[in-house]
Amino acid sequence: MENGLELRLRSPKAFNLIRSAGEAAEMIKDGMVIGVSGFTPSGYPKAVPLALAERGKYGEKLKIDLYTGASVGPEIDTALTEAGMIRRRLPYHTNGTIREKINDGMIEYLDMHLSQCPQYVNYGMLKKVDVAIVEALAITEDGNLIPTTAIGNSPTFIKSADKVIVEINLKKPLAMEGMADIYMTENPPNRKPIPICNVADRIGTTYIECGFDKIAAIVITDLQDRTRPLSEEDENSKKISKNIIKFFDSEVKSGRLSKSLLPLQSGVGSVANAVLYGLCDSEYEDLTCYTEVVQDSMLDLLRAGKAKMLSTTALSPSPIALEKFLEEIDFFKEKIILRPVEISNNPEVVRRLGVISINTAIEADIYGNVNSTHIMGSKLMNGIGGSGDFSRNGSITIFSTVSTAKGGRISSIVPMVSHVDHTEHEVMVLVTEQGFADLRGLSPKERAIKIIENCAHPDYREALMDYFKRSCESAALQTPHILEEALSWHSQFMETGSMK
Amino acid sequence: MENGLELRLRSPKAFNLIRSAGEAAEMIKDGMVIGVSGFTPSGYPKAVPLALAERGKYGEKLKIDLYTGASVGPEIDTALTEAGMIRRRLPYHTNGTIREKINDGMIEYLDMHLSQCPQYVNYGMLKKVDVAIVEALAITEDGNLIPTTAIGNSPTFIKSADKVIVEINLKKPLAMEGMADIYMTENPPNRKPIPICNVADRIGTTYIECGFDKIAAIVITDLQDRTRPLSEEDENSKKISKNIIKFFDSEVKSGRLSKSLLPLQSGVGSVANAVLYGLCDSEYEDLTCYTEVVQDSMLDLLRAGKAKMLSTTALSPSPIALEKFLEEIDFFKEKIILRPVEISNNPEVVRRLGVISINTAIEADIYGNVNSTHIMGSKLMNGIGGSGDFSRNGSITIFSTVSTAKGGRISSIVPMVSHVDHTEHEVMVLVTEQGFADLRGLSPKERAIKIIENCAHPDYREALMDYFKRSCESAALQTPHILEEALSWHSQFMETGSMK
Repeated sequence: MENGLELRLRSPKAFNLIRSAGEAAEMIKDGMVIGVSGFTPSGYPKAVPLALAERGKYGEKLKIDLYTGASVGPEIDTALTEAGMIRRRLPYHTNGTIREKINDGMIEYLDMHLSQCPQYVNYGMLKKVDVAIVEALAITEDGNLIPTTAIGNSPTFIKSADKVIVEINLKKPLAMEGMADIYMTENPPNRKPIPICNVADRIGTTYIECGFDKIAAIVITDLQDRTRPLSEEDENSKKISKNIIKFFDSEVKSGRLSKSLLPLQSGVGSVANAVLYGLCDSEYEDLTCYTEVVQDSMLDLLRAGKAKMLSTTALSPSPIALEKFLEEIDFFKEKIILRPVEISNNPEVVRRLGVISINTAIEADIYGNVNSTHIMGSKLMNGIGGSGDFSRNGSITIFSTVSTAKGGRISSIVPMVSHVDHTEHEVMVLVTEQGFADLRGLSPKERAIKIIENCAHPDYREALMDYFKRSCESAALQTPHILEEALSWHSQFMETGSMK
Repeated sequence: MENGLELRLRSPKAFNLIRSAGEAAEMIKDGMVIGVSGFTPSGYPKAVPLALAERGKYGEKLKIDLYTGASVGPEIDTALTEAGMIRRRLPYHTNGTIREKINDGMIEYLDMHLSQCPQYVNYGMLKKVDVAIVEALAITEDGNLIPTTAIGNSPTFIKSADKVIVEINLKKPLAMEGMADIYMTENPPNRKPIPICNVADRIGTTYIECGFDKIAAIVITDLQDRTRPLSEEDENSKKISKNIIKFFDSEVKSGRLSKSLLPLQSGVGSVANAVLYGLCDSEYEDLTCYTEVVQDSMLDLLRAGKAKMLSTTALSPSPIALEKFLEEIDFFKEKIILRPVEISNNPEVVRRLGVISINTAIEADIYGNVNSTHIMGSKLMNGIGGSGDFSRNGSITIFSTVSTAKGGRISSIVPMVSHVDHTEHEVMVLVTEQGFADLRGLSPKERAIKIIENCAHPDYREALMDYFKRSCESAALQTPHILEEALSWHSQFMETGSMK
């Protein structure tokens, strides 16, 4: 028992279940539904999916439905896509290889509100999971699993699965044990209130229930997560960050928010990081986060003493920040709670806590509708992820985008978005590097003027105002549109390569 | 003290506050925000708004912002619109006169998720209410109000208002007292779980807190609500009802639902009534409703013993059913709870109870996006109402529409909806008189085929399939669209009067 493996496998039963990744992958058969741990490329299984993909190289025909928490690493999405093994994929991804196959029509993709995914499984609205593959720190003496850096949908997939394959990852330090807080909801009509009233409230167990009866194989691995390197903090992200903080300042000034704001949720990427770094340098204090993913900047907020508590379903710092995080694990352990997606993204809790949600738009229209999933109406980018869970239930819903893309040839503010993920009814604040538009309490026409003036790039303002004015002359005046023209900016881009 | 008025005004202080409607209306000044009771044309004030409108006839220039619970009667929307007194209106209406002025651009209209309206007021995101006008059964000895047939946003408006004008309506029987259950949420970060685990749970008081300090006038009236007469049960509604029940049957067969289903929410109108009447004749039993409005059919479900309990924010039976209801008030009183909108439509409770939501679409597209507010993209019909509150958080989200309109010249299933209120991410079941499409677990392309085959009118199926196929040949294959053509069915209708 070298490597202190007995600290991770706390029953002789566990030792008897040790298999190679290849042996474990053999348990996966054609047509199966496979549910994996992981959320953002973090805490996902690696060895078994890689071994499964290998089988494809030897000509084996095998197709699976793949359920995840959200995005997972290339060891799953790239490897299995290249092996031609994915038939159906849900609820979210960020992988270039699978994106191509989805848009080529080779993979059926369900773009779901993340909080609804576990519910769909629990209600039997999706096919049940045949095999769950879950990364764990350790297996308790009762065969329960101590999760690693992401909880995602693991509790639900394990409950649904006939068989569970566990990847014990030796690179994830046992010191992380205790960060998880696993709470499962009952199905209606037996569901009870989720008793979270503060970000810091712990309501469950530190392990995921499983039991040795379900565990079919245990694979020991030391493969590391391929978390994303931190994106460069560019000028536009910094400007967007400043505009969001300017908005917060005005809320504080009006008395609607205090200096500790309300729990923050923020998507991933450079803007999210810039906003949180901006808060590090601000007068805000005692901040909290109730979110789905933690990146470098949130750890820095804790380090700087600006934030006091953080709830998430996944830790996904950059490789460098991850190393630092693991060195300081004792400091962070008390300040971070890892919850299942069903809890981290739950409408009930998000509404109760009054979460301030900050998410990224691909484009927004003059009336405040937001597209966060499709390029030019047809092509999937990643998916809606948790943005809807938070934006539809939070106290303040902020969407940000750089006002142009493709070197200025695309305006991110358009007459009509080519796909709607967030409607005019719930988009409260729109932010670009140009400024912010507070849309609360405004009619669609009032919103249009504010969005064009405050958020659109100067190169496109005149054309947008022209569209708006001509629409007002020819259409009904609640949400004036010229339908023949509403999507013509997109059509023109596809034809000429520019919206100008 | 004739008419037993002392039973309704339970303090001498109340008697001292009695004013004429005209005197009370004088308290309303130019530029004020007025919040009124009422939800669906029920429980709204009548005498004071009529008196206010009178002032316009004498040339007085006065404009107000009008906040309601949802739709109110012509004594408010028609009278004040005709008097030119409404500057801004929210969050919902169903009135023809005001609709015209909104679409003419004379009134700024905010089309809000109903559950967000009280929250916007409580958070200070909307201007505070200057004067609340509230219909009541009675005023307690402490100056608190016993509401009548709708709670709506009265508790929030009263809390926000500087002054409250109470209309004591003698036509609303005191026997109704006790049906209301008033519970107010704190603002974050102090909000607690809403302790409703069953439709029947009572969690609050039978009165709305107000106090004599706020009451500026009490007006005694006997004007009756102008509730809507019951719409004729037409053939298409019956067919839609049968298709919805067929869907329920399949859910029961699969074991996903029991014979008592889960709490039902259903919009208003002939389809909603037909569905509920359909359930009266079915094998379903021990049904419950957790909804925002109760019409004739729900009362009949209770009468027939099919339903056992019903939670709502408004009672809005037809004039005939209302009379019968009042005669049988003792029977109904124990089986109906009236709650504020913030509770009846609260995402937390809707998600917990697993509400099955059934709402009406103006149109739906082949990928499952639903337009429930705008005609041809620009013209406001009524508003989103509570449909989003329920459909985004319920366990099953059903939208229904007749497959054609305008004598077949409009297809309600279109390539792309001209306005999105409910996105592809949350529309689970689409139903027309042609059949139902269960969209759960399907990718957009799979949905398209099912919707075209099961829901579209045969006259339009070929053209829809042709659009879908040509889109698949020319666009990325997640959600294939030909953007130049996507809205052309609407454009063609506006030009030629037909989508054919």
